[in-house]
Amino acid sequence: MIKIGILGYGNLGKGVELGIKQNPDMELVSIFTRRNPGSLKTVTNVPVINISEVEKWKDKIDVMILCGGSATDLPNQGPKYAEMFNTVDSFDTHAKVSEYYNQVNEKAIKGNKISIISVGWDPGLFSINRLYAETILPTGNTYTFWGKGVSQGHSDAIRRISGVKNAVQYTIPIEDAVEAVREGNNPVLTTRQKHLRECFVVLEEGADGRKIEEEIKTMPNYFADYDTNVYFISEEELNEKHSKMPHGGFVIRSGKTGMNEQTKQIIEYSLKLESNPEFTANVLLSYARAAYKLHEKGETGARTVLDIPPAMLSTKTTEELLKTII
Amino acid sequence: MIKIGILGYGNLGKGVELGIKQNPDMELVSIFTRRNPGSLKTVTNVPVINISEVEKWKDKIDVMILCGGSATDLPNQGPKYAEMFNTVDSFDTHAKVSEYYNQVNEKAIKGNKISIISVGWDPGLFSINRLYAETILPTGNTYTFWGKGVSQGHSDAIRRISGVKNAVQYTIPIEDAVEAVREGNNPVLTTRQKHLRECFVVLEEGADGRKIEEEIKTMPNYFADYDTNVYFISEEELNEKHSKMPHGGFVIRSGKTGMNEQTKQIIEYSLKLESNPEFTANVLLSYARAAYKLHEKGETGARTVLDIPPAMLSTKTTEELLKTII
Repeated sequence: MIKIGILGYGNLGKGVELGIKQNPDMELVSIFTRRNPGSLKTVTNVPVINISEVEKWKDKIDVMILCGGSATDLPNQGPKYAEMFNTVDSFDTHAKVSEYYNQVNEKAIKGNKISIISVGWDPGLFSINRLYAETILPTGNTYTFWGKGVSQGHSDAIRRISGVKNAVQYTIPIEDAVEAVREGNNPVLTTRQKHLRECFVVLEEGADGRKIEEEIKTMPNYFADYDTNVYFISEEELNEKHSKMPHGGFVIRSGKTGMNEQTKQIIEYSLKLESNPEFTANVLLSYARAAYKLHEKGETGARTVLDIPPAMLSTKTTEELLKTII
Repeated sequence: MIKIGILGYGNLGKGVELGIKQNPDMELVSIFTRRNPGSLKTVTNVPVINISEVEKWKDKIDVMILCGGSATDLPNQGPKYAEMFNTVDSFDTHAKVSEYYNQVNEKAIKGNKISIISVGWDPGLFSINRLYAETILPTGNTYTFWGKGVSQGHSDAIRRISGVKNAVQYTIPIEDAVEAVREGNNPVLTTRQKHLRECFVVLEEGADGRKIEEEIKTMPNYFADYDTNVYFISEEELNEKHSKMPHGGFVIRSGKTGMNEQTKQIIEYSLKLESNPEFTANVLLSYARAAYKLHEKGETGARTVLDIPPAMLSTKTTEELLKTII
């Protein structure tokens, strides 16, 4: 049995807790939180421990799954716990992955541990598919589309606006753009041509809707470069219709082969997820198994999903893989 | 530069010859054939050598790409040349992969070489996707659909019928079945419900079309379990409209997560290929790079695509992968 710890108990931590039940070679040892352990309502009957005591669990946990966020939690927690535990995390700030990798790598080597970083679907499964696709079709273009799904970052950005009580933002890929890519037309697409954004917003009493709509639509980085629709709804409607966390997307490689590179070849990978955190949790668990195996082999340091052979994620033997998967 | 040899010069061998031009870290050293070398019209200006002399090239080639067929060529060539060269092949008889792996493994270890077997898209990229998907979503069903595309095996089976001059067979996935799977309905599908078969047949003069149609439709293993349409056309029409080798397909995993496994999660991988052999050739070349790297590291024996970390296919450094792919 692979002994799993969960560090951080938000949506992702809950997803990991549920996902462990689907993996018979894993058991959940405990959940670590910065909050008062007694205040946590967990799904399964598992000890909840304050994070200040985590070091005592060093030898009782094979792989610690870091379920904190990339903005403020993981930049500190990643390197810190890489020295103490084998870890898996979903660090997703693309621009800082290289720096983060080096910090985690140094600590993991120091502690004789393995850390697999940036695990999930993007980065993660989408990264793997971008790499396979561009390597197999060296001449071509890779397109990534996201959605339809809830972007936490964009929802948070709206919630920070004064006068907004609550908000949910959907990222929506533009169907015509996806179709043009699928047909192998290799279109050059602007940000605006690839995705549109839909915002469902609950106003505080007396707030000026028109002003808030303008503020959302002109917000740099988040909305200014997109066509954005803003809908004002009641809190009841938001809770009823927009409380789930679906997501998904596509990685499409449109390549050419042949004597004059005249032959169209299309590779597409897509996800349609009713729950983003539950799916991401399951990806983390597959890589927790790989981290365990790598540590058993005596390897140390940081890894990404690109370094892990697919077979290492599986419980199956080579013989079983040859007979059931190949 | 990785020095590549091609053994066997059919459609796949030609595809490899063309694909090498897209990979600046590779050069084609020579093509080996059982035929009279002078009789071969190659695409690029490369030495063509009779296979009887292949042993002399042992130290001049880093990776030999075996482009023979799985029915009669590879069962002999795979083990034989695994002792002499690092090899990559597209052995695709699913039921015999395990036996073949063991034979190749023994010889590759004996010769201190690496052999990556069953490389292509199915087996190959589809195998990888079946494994990732079933590991990440342990509760669920995996569906593989093929087509629309030309099946060489089925076309050959028709051509062997007395009175048939030429034939091309298309495997076509049934759209309703694909849609039901995509919706997460987890249908139980019979062979007949997943694919239909379309046959374009040129008759010999005086042949009995009705009898041949009956013979095709009742052929065990190949057609009896499918709805099959047979169209008789002229040789001119066959050459004009059916001489290309498109193919493709889908691997779809329909899984469930959550407290009561109530959350639908769909993973789909699909290929839409205008040329099956040119695409398969490019997959072989990516794994030739991996075989080269594994041999440089001193590893020996047989491998499948499931054993190879994605990063090993690429020309990019870890730093470049972190910055451009993750």
